[in-house]
Amino acid sequence: MHTRKIADSTVRRLAIYLRFLEEFERHGADTLSSESLASRAGTTSAQVRKDLSFFGSFGKRGLGYDVHALAGQIRNILGLTRRYRVVLVGAGRLAGALVQYAEFGARGFDIVSVVDQDPAKIGTRWGDLTIADVAGLERIIAQERIDIAILVTPAGPAQALVDRLTTSGVTAVLNFAPVQLHVPAGIDVKNVNLAVELETLSYAIQHRDAS
Amino acid sequence: MHTRKIADSTVRRLAIYLRFLEEFERHGADTLSSESLASRAGTTSAQVRKDLSFFGSFGKRGLGYDVHALAGQIRNILGLTRRYRVVLVGAGRLAGALVQYAEFGARGFDIVSVVDQDPAKIGTRWGDLTIADVAGLERIIAQERIDIAILVTPAGPAQALVDRLTTSGVTAVLNFAPVQLHVPAGIDVKNVNLAVELETLSYAIQHRDAS
Repeated sequence: MHTRKIADSTVRRLAIYLRFLEEFERHGADTLSSESLASRAGTTSAQVRKDLSFFGSFGKRGLGYDVHALAGQIRNILGLTRRYRVVLVGAGRLAGALVQYAEFGARGFDIVSVVDQDPAKIGTRWGDLTIADVAGLERIIAQERIDIAILVTPAGPAQALVDRLTTSGVTAVLNFAPVQLHVPAGIDVKNVNLAVELETLSYAIQHRDAS
Repeated sequence: MHTRKIADSTVRRLAIYLRFLEEFERHGADTLSSESLASRAGTTSAQVRKDLSFFGSFGKRGLGYDVHALAGQIRNILGLTRRYRVVLVGAGRLAGALVQYAEFGARGFDIVSVVDQDPAKIGTRWGDLTIADVAGLERIIAQERIDIAILVTPAGPAQALVDRLTTSGVTAVLNFAPVQLHVPAGIDVKNVNLAVELETLSYAIQHRDAS
């Protein structure tokens, strides 16, 4: 497939567009204008056209985009035509919420294993999963053919754990630990920091109050 | 204060820089180079210098940035010199994780109220908080002087709830519901979609496999 590198912010918007395209598909719509897509995704139609021009135009002037073709193409680009096997590293409260986050499964991400270091948690069940000892992380990654790890630990143990993950062949990590991880080239880490999300709001409030 | 509008992506990086500056402060460092900051934040020194140039230079050639001055200035910009009162709308598992997310309090965001519609949850305690009936949302917003709402509900009720929030004077919403919310001008909504985060990883995997 076409592999021109797309910016992270564009990838995110494509994922958002896909959600609305699928919503339109469910409602039986065949075509969609860049204006409608922009309105739903909270951006401009110029941005939509620019984002979609990255991989060839599906829009016809006056007719809009073909909903099915565009949704299929975005799924291809995002790698959503296959499923991914995910390990949760850390079995705290946030991990417990993620296990029940229905949209992961709906998008093709299957949480197949959860590990923790706490003897009180190891062996207990979370739905279909049994929390495993983090000591066996390397074996689990191989046996379960893990594609992606979600790191949901405090900052302290995070770097040592990501070192073990990458040494064991995991190449994609979603990191909730509040620390910047160092990884070899070829490994992708995406950081989620929920406090940073709130700080974009405090910035907005501060900016408004001041203006 | 200076109110030139800064892009969302820049605001995020400033929040990340602040974390490392504070870490350096705790270790007693007085100055820090743009290279060190870039290395810790996973970006380039050119990007750091560009980001920091938005609000005047704190760097001296060959000496680096003054850690204390720069941290203080970023706190000002981000509106982190005051505290914010936050209501959690929805008392599911993710909300339960957010209530215990220590970094919120550490950054000045105090969750002072949790509401839900489930009679089985209303009246039960989460630490110091008692889950309140969402029917009283407007009264709670006024009495508790709420600055920010975190919406942690399914997609279905989200728009009606955000309408009630904005009508009641809440101007900043962190939205975890998997739906694009429509709000009047002057209201800031930031969306967190954890599946989209995973999709930036599946894109990266797909891109690597294909190249």
